[in-house]
Amino acid sequence: MAEFRSILKKVRSGKLDVGEAERMLRVDGVEMIEEFARIDIGREKRVGIPEVILAEGKTPEQVVKIVEGMRGNVLVSRVDEQHLKAIRKKFGKVSYNRLARIIVIVKHKAERKGAVGVITAGTSDIRVAEEATVVAETMGCTVKRAYDVGVAGIHRLFAPLREMMKEEVDVIVVVAGREGTLPSIVAGMVDVPVIGVPASSGYGFGGRGEAALKSMLQSCSFLTVVNIDNGIGAGACAAQIARRANEH
Amino acid sequence: MAEFRSILKKVRSGKLDVGEAERMLRVDGVEMIEEFARIDIGREKRVGIPEVILAEGKTPEQVVKIVEGMRGNVLVSRVDEQHLKAIRKKFGKVSYNRLARIIVIVKHKAERKGAVGVITAGTSDIRVAEEATVVAETMGCTVKRAYDVGVAGIHRLFAPLREMMKEEVDVIVVVAGREGTLPSIVAGMVDVPVIGVPASSGYGFGGRGEAALKSMLQSCSFLTVVNIDNGIGAGACAAQIARRANEH
Amino acid sequence: MAEFRSILKKVRSGKLDVGEAERMLRVDGVEMIEEFARIDIGREKRVGIPEVILAEGKTPEQVVKIVEGMRGNVLVSRVDEQHLKAIRKKFGKVSYNRLARIIVIVKHKAERKGAVGVITAGTSDIRVAEEATVVAETMGCTVKRAYDVGVAGIHRLFAPLREMMKEEVDVIVVVAGREGTLPSIVAGMVDVPVIGVPASSGYGFGGRGEAALKSMLQSCSFLTVVNIDNGIGAGACAAQIARRANEH
Amino acid sequence: MAEFRSILKKVRSGKLDVGEAERMLRVDGVEMIEEFARIDIGREKRVGIPEVILAEGKTPEQVVKIVEGMRGNVLVSRVDEQHLKAIRKKFGKVSYNRLARIIVIVKHKAERKGAVGVITAGTSDIRVAEEATVVAETMGCTVKRAYDVGVAGIHRLFAPLREMMKEEVDVIVVVAGREGTLPSIVAGMVDVPVIGVPASSGYGFGGRGEAALKSMLQSCSFLTVVNIDNGIGAGACAAQIARRANEH
Amino acid sequence: MAEFRSILKKVRSGKLDVGEAERMLRVDGVEMIEEFARIDIGREKRVGIPEVILAEGKTPEQVVKIVEGMRGNVLVSRVDEQHLKAIRKKFGKVSYNRLARIIVIVKHKAERKGAVGVITAGTSDIRVAEEATVVAETMGCTVKRAYDVGVAGIHRLFAPLREMMKEEVDVIVVVAGREGTLPSIVAGMVDVPVIGVPASSGYGFGGRGEAALKSMLQSCSFLTVVNIDNGIGAGACAAQIARRANEH
Amino acid sequence: MAEFRSILKKVRSGKLDVGEAERMLRVDGVEMIEEFARIDIGREKRVGIPEVILAEGKTPEQVVKIVEGMRGNVLVSRVDEQHLKAIRKKFGKVSYNRLARIIVIVKHKAERKGAVGVITAGTSDIRVAEEATVVAETMGCTVKRAYDVGVAGIHRLFAPLREMMKEEVDVIVVVAGREGTLPSIVAGMVDVPVIGVPASSGYGFGGRGEAALKSMLQSCSFLTVVNIDNGIGAGACAAQIARRANEH
Amino acid sequence: MAEFRSILKKVRSGKLDVGEAERMLRVDGVEMIEEFARIDIGREKRVGIPEVILAEGKTPEQVVKIVEGMRGNVLVSRVDEQHLKAIRKKFGKVSYNRLARIIVIVKHKAERKGAVGVITAGTSDIRVAEEATVVAETMGCTVKRAYDVGVAGIHRLFAPLREMMKEEVDVIVVVAGREGTLPSIVAGMVDVPVIGVPASSGYGFGGRGEAALKSMLQSCSFLTVVNIDNGIGAGACAAQIARRANEH
Amino acid sequence: MAEFRSILKKVRSGKLDVGEAERMLRVDGVEMIEEFARIDIGREKRVGIPEVILAEGKTPEQVVKIVEGMRGNVLVSRVDEQHLKAIRKKFGKVSYNRLARIIVIVKHKAERKGAVGVITAGTSDIRVAEEATVVAETMGCTVKRAYDVGVAGIHRLFAPLREMMKEEVDVIVVVAGREGTLPSIVAGMVDVPVIGVPASSGYGFGGRGEAALKSMLQSCSFLTVVNIDNGIGAGACAAQIARRANEH
Repeated sequence: MAEFRSILKKVRSGKLDVGEAERMLRVDGVEMIEEFARIDIGREKRVGIPEVILAEGKTPEQVVKIVEGMRGNVLVSRVDEQHLKAIRKKFGKVSYNRLARIIVIVKHKAERKGAVGVITAGTSDIRVAEEATVVAETMGCTVKRAYDVGVAGIHRLFAPLREMMKEEVDVIVVVAGREGTLPSIVAGMVDVPVIGVPASSGYGFGGRGEAALKSMLQSCSFLTVVNIDNGIGAGACAAQIARRANEH
Repeated sequence: MAEFRSILKKVRSGKLDVGEAERMLRVDGVEMIEEFARIDIGREKRVGIPEVILAEGKTPEQVVKIVEGMRGNVLVSRVDEQHLKAIRKKFGKVSYNRLARIIVIVKHKAERKGAVGVITAGTSDIRVAEEATVVAETMGCTVKRAYDVGVAGIHRLFAPLREMMKEEVDVIVVVAGREGTLPSIVAGMVDVPVIGVPASSGYGFGGRGEAALKSMLQSCSFLTVVNIDNGIGAGACAAQIARRANEH
Repeated sequence: MAEFRSILKKVRSGKLDVGEAERMLRVDGVEMIEEFARIDIGREKRVGIPEVILAEGKTPEQVVKIVEGMRGNVLVSRVDEQHLKAIRKKFGKVSYNRLARIIVIVKHKAERKGAVGVITAGTSDIRVAEEATVVAETMGCTVKRAYDVGVAGIHRLFAPLREMMKEEVDVIVVVAGREGTLPSIVAGMVDVPVIGVPASSGYGFGGRGEAALKSMLQSCSFLTVVNIDNGIGAGACAAQIARRANEH
Repeated sequence: MAEFRSILKKVRSGKLDVGEAERMLRVDGVEMIEEFARIDIGREKRVGIPEVILAEGKTPEQVVKIVEGMRGNVLVSRVDEQHLKAIRKKFGKVSYNRLARIIVIVKHKAERKGAVGVITAGTSDIRVAEEATVVAETMGCTVKRAYDVGVAGIHRLFAPLREMMKEEVDVIVVVAGREGTLPSIVAGMVDVPVIGVPASSGYGFGGRGEAALKSMLQSCSFLTVVNIDNGIGAGACAAQIARRANEH
Repeated sequence: MAEFRSILKKVRSGKLDVGEAERMLRVDGVEMIEEFARIDIGREKRVGIPEVILAEGKTPEQVVKIVEGMRGNVLVSRVDEQHLKAIRKKFGKVSYNRLARIIVIVKHKAERKGAVGVITAGTSDIRVAEEATVVAETMGCTVKRAYDVGVAGIHRLFAPLREMMKEEVDVIVVVAGREGTLPSIVAGMVDVPVIGVPASSGYGFGGRGEAALKSMLQSCSFLTVVNIDNGIGAGACAAQIARRANEH
Repeated sequence: MAEFRSILKKVRSGKLDVGEAERMLRVDGVEMIEEFARIDIGREKRVGIPEVILAEGKTPEQVVKIVEGMRGNVLVSRVDEQHLKAIRKKFGKVSYNRLARIIVIVKHKAERKGAVGVITAGTSDIRVAEEATVVAETMGCTVKRAYDVGVAGIHRLFAPLREMMKEEVDVIVVVAGREGTLPSIVAGMVDVPVIGVPASSGYGFGGRGEAALKSMLQSCSFLTVVNIDNGIGAGACAAQIARRANEH
Repeated sequence: MAEFRSILKKVRSGKLDVGEAERMLRVDGVEMIEEFARIDIGREKRVGIPEVILAEGKTPEQVVKIVEGMRGNVLVSRVDEQHLKAIRKKFGKVSYNRLARIIVIVKHKAERKGAVGVITAGTSDIRVAEEATVVAETMGCTVKRAYDVGVAGIHRLFAPLREMMKEEVDVIVVVAGREGTLPSIVAGMVDVPVIGVPASSGYGFGGRGEAALKSMLQSCSFLTVVNIDNGIGAGACAAQIARRANEH
Repeated sequence: MAEFRSILKKVRSGKLDVGEAERMLRVDGVEMIEEFARIDIGREKRVGIPEVILAEGKTPEQVVKIVEGMRGNVLVSRVDEQHLKAIRKKFGKVSYNRLARIIVIVKHKAERKGAVGVITAGTSDIRVAEEATVVAETMGCTVKRAYDVGVAGIHRLFAPLREMMKEEVDVIVVVAGREGTLPSIVAGMVDVPVIGVPASSGYGFGGRGEAALKSMLQSCSFLTVVNIDNGIGAGACAAQIARRANEH
């Protein structure tokens, strides 16, 4: 910012006239942009989502070092025992969700607002759903879980869905693998936004979440989608929606 | 058959002894097989399904000529006006299903047995469903149609499904495009076999029936599947099942 | 509903005792469900989205007939001149968005609430963006358009984005073809939910929207996605979010 | 069911008149549906197929717990030694098919009816075929196996096929990997329904069952298909067909 | 060639000694190679296959001009009426195969040797098979056709195959669309090389020749394959084999 | 820029002190960035490449209007007769390359520097090659063409390649369809950078440029690649390289 | 055969007249075919290729048992140390090619005829090439190897190729991974048939042999192809060609 | 070369006249080409890039042996500890880049010229970037690294980019995984050539570098691309460009 300040100072002192100062700044817009960029107060503040660090493929030391560099709330995802130990050693007792394999380091608690429903079709989808849950909670939302409501027996879905409607969730995240039908069914029943998350279950053709993803993208109901197993993305977007719904 | 007959005759007249005859036949098994093959009484009799001729890409003359060569019942699929005219000119008033674009030429009426349900999710799936219907009816089955029961509103499905169960259909063909959910839902509700048919509707990623096919193959319910838009195949297999169910 | 009512009447009059009535209803749960389904007051009311009819591949007569059967607001998409003429003949002067090729038939005007931003990268994405716009407006939202902000020159994006932030849009729909970068960039800059719509532009490998879709699904920013060219889906989901944001 | 019963009671006692009761129930159809759903007597009874639990990816404890919750017959598929041990410890001596890696827990024996033929092209397809066999047998069918009949030498197929025809199987499941030709050939020779199961054998392009699946979907013969390696699905559908064929 | 000749001349006249000449030529090997390349007596002579010109996408004038530039035998493939007219105008009465849409311009007749069998599964495969036939005949082979032997009824195959074996074909080209089974079956029965040609028939998943290609590549029998619809390639390779078989 | 200038003026006149001015500007960095963005002197100046407008899918009016808005050199690609007529009517006699279907509107002539070689394997690749040529020439490069050097006879390549090396081209663009071998071969022979352009020729599997693209990406030689048929991109990048090579 | 013989005997003895006998046989053609099939003297004799057993995925015991059942020459491919040990224990000292991981068990030595050339582009292709070599040698061919001739430097190819031409190989197998160019180049230079074998080398897009396969299928030269890594198939087909070339 | 020399000698001595000599050489051009090929002074000299040996999948002994055979500079990529040890034992202390897993053996130091910028979006892209760096440095270029500049926060990019521009890099390599946006953004900002390298990061649909590759190929900016993870290729091409830029 030094350079920018010095220009202003010279303008002030009359050493530089306005036209010249303007020209100087114009000459190299990119440089100017960079100056401002440097004082940027961080993505978390700007988009309202904690930083997420993928631990997978990083050493415990690298992860610790990256976390130290962060100013806002931090989620460390796909951690193993080594990562967990290293982080606990450095930052003391941090919150850890074993199902989602996510560590949460809260530096400033988010204001509580908004409610998110999280539904899974099967048991194997829970690890993805919990990712969404952890993110949404960290962002200040209340989360209403309804796991394993199945799809072969659609009727198992009704009770928890009604419960969610009663508790006025602002958005529902639905995780489903294999044929990925559940998000479409939910979206055809409720009037709040639905986010579909394909889970990488299922083998054979269209397996590992592919059929689920395509099926959600083709849905006759109205829903938006995130990538396969991207529970974190779904949770973050859901929390943005829920927060927005409670800002007015 | 001449050769075979002449061997038998020679055996009979004593010109050939049994061992020699056996050896002669053994020497060239393939030749023998061919003899039998030539007297083969036709696929229709063997597998119980009429011959299906794809008119698309054939001239009216070619189609007429092929039909003439057939001894059993014949379906001519994907016909246009020219095909229709040429066939009518040759064979007189034949039955024509305009939705399925299939001409049916019945040479010997099938014995009536078995009932097939045919369900479609949307209007654009009907052309495929009618293919199934025409084939199944030609094979002697009663067909119970329930078109356009949708999926966004699953509830629209219950009434026709109950009707089908009452009328004791032996098998249900379910046609669905886009995300292709309907066959799974039906299969989760009934105890008769369900055949899913993906229809080539839907645009974008997973469009033209691909998401539907993958979704049916990944289904948590139990169903079997035919290729995209293959209403004829579904109808034929359904009729085989229905017929079998009424043979004992 | 008749059947259900008559059971209740018999219970009332003492002709049927409670246990028996319960059993009768239990015996065939499906039948009961169906009764309720039949009195369903329509998907629009339930999920708050108008019915959308894809005109493409339907005759003008079919489209007119389907529209007649609808009770709520109706959008007819991908219409050609024939469809337009037939609908105008039947329903008088209807609203028609030529860019989006959508006819809007409003039977009861939606309460105005919520604001949606719609951004496109290029000119050829506008047809998709307008689909989103029409749906969102029909659902009662104010739409703030910013078309053709490009991506090669990211800076062109800043002004309209700031404008949107000032006008407090509740959600932003971003349409982009080819490499589909724009939604990620927008999502990295704002704190409202962003919905990415891949447009089927671009030729060669990854063309027709595929690279754009994959790129959005892989985004390091947080955003949700709808299928290629699915402007209607994006608009509907955005309007759900915007409406929700203004309900409290 | 309490709520529902109490409404009925109030109608009976005159505390609630018929119209009111109807309205109450109508007001919240979903709630009613849920009531019925809750008393649902299980998918097995409805669709006639045992519950199948995929052990792969679940801990022995989870599997045991899920099995406990089931009322009907249960198949646990893709079990390893740990699962087997845990289940045997809890439920005593259960039936285990080592080839198919399936545990069968029969709570009520199925009535014996129907016959299913199961054919494999090669040795490596047997693990898939045995899945079909176990399911079909659990559902009460007699299974006639004919493994490893090859395809390079088609003639090896004739004897076992004739045997099956003699024993009047109601349906034939044919498992084949690599080019997946065998189901088409069988379907061209018999008049009972044929279900093709692609097996994930074969390397290189089109390997791991893909060529087999596509080849079966493209078959000129008439057959239906399940997903790659989905022996369980094939067995369940075959048993439905066989049972149906013996119900009249 | 001038440069090369002049070096030789200088060596001859003593103006250049051998070492120097060698060095000069070595210095720029590439240049030398180019000299030789220029006197190359043509691909036809080297690999023994006529030049093939794809007319599709070229104007009649372009095609005529390219043909003029050729010294050896020429095949012009995928010609339309305009191409045919232009070529006939220029080169007089040329041979034209209407099924294969190939013009043959023979400048020096090939010596007759070798026999090629060409088999098709269906009628729609004939256009591809005729491509193979035309090429093989132009290269001097006798071709034995057996079209439309089907696959649903494998037995139809035996007679023509036996005929081919009797007539001692040196290689068999088998064209098949949809599931592409026929080449595998033939290869499992004969001891001459088999070349499979997938034809672009079949719709839905794996359609347009894809399933056929993959199925042939996965074949348990031994055969080699050319690309979808590449009858010309199959014919050329078959003729090479047949010629080779008759050279000793 | 008004706002920015007025702040400077106030600083100058003492109405605003330096700290305050800095704070004001800091408060909304985005706004500032936008100001600079607005005075951006255009992408052409920044990256040194003319604007390229894809005419395909735009009306002649739209194209004319977009061209008017441009300050630098403009290429209009994939134009048809209507576009050409409209542009000529508006801008007078513009340069038009019929093979590449590109109109060039030069507003300020580029300084001549650098040489680019452009090679094609076949005749059908020329349309793509000419795109590269037009762009490179507009950017001031000398282009050395060598079309149709084939690949079946590699030797045809040597002469033109040697010519290029002699004329010291700075980079070579090689266009090839079908198996796309040529760029690898060229890259294995020269020491200047090679850019491969897959052309959308070839039918069947891997056709329409796909095999060519993959083959270039897998090349054992060292080369970079642009998308299928993207002659414009290749020409622009080649010109950047050639220009750079002549700047020192 | 008993049944067949007894019919012949009855004909002989006059107990059955010719017409009746014919009818009996006709009645069940399939049964008859089966009889002949049973006396089939084995695939090896019919197609002239040894039986190939894929050891991968089979236990040593299974492999030993299968080998015992074979009458002709046997190749066991993809064997590990356990397989090798078990086979050696049972059958004594068998021939083992460590590079190809193939065991050869020769029960009757093939007559020596024909010569096959085998070329590889790189070192990692040798394991595939050796598969071809082993099969061809077992089938009686002389094999001329030329490994690692590279492609980046095409010139390295000339010497070994000339050598092969001199030694009059009847067919050339060319193995290449990554972009798979080599087979096309060879096929453009020689007049004997060329079989391309894509090897599963190369990473990234088009890796693991896919680009190589597509590139060979798209080749402008004339060659036939086998699946990725299918050295055995290539060797068997090459040997068929070479044998045929030396039969006259 | 003997043969060639002897011809020259005979010409010299008059034993052979010029015409005859020319004819002799013409007769077998291929042989001649081979002679020259044999004296080829190596690819490194011709294309100016060191030999690269992929250690992965080779034994330490094989790698050592191949390195010994090389005359120029050698890079051994994807080495493990065993390879490293074996090479150090043989060649003494060689340079090893642990991040890139590349050993560099410099036999003649490259002349220093040209500057290459290397940018990565994330930390996991560094291994790929370092490959590019090592190659470029070995080829004599100065490398300016800027790792981990992110993309969610584009502003982080400005400072290092400006630095590179100041230091006058001749070309920039940009490595990015997931959605692969960064290369497009950089190419839209600078006037030197940009080479995009997709990195195999990202899971789910379009993961492992696929979305990144497609996105770069579809880029609206102008850039060329190498295959996924092909840092070596990018570095080599960049160095060629940089060298060329400093040759004049």
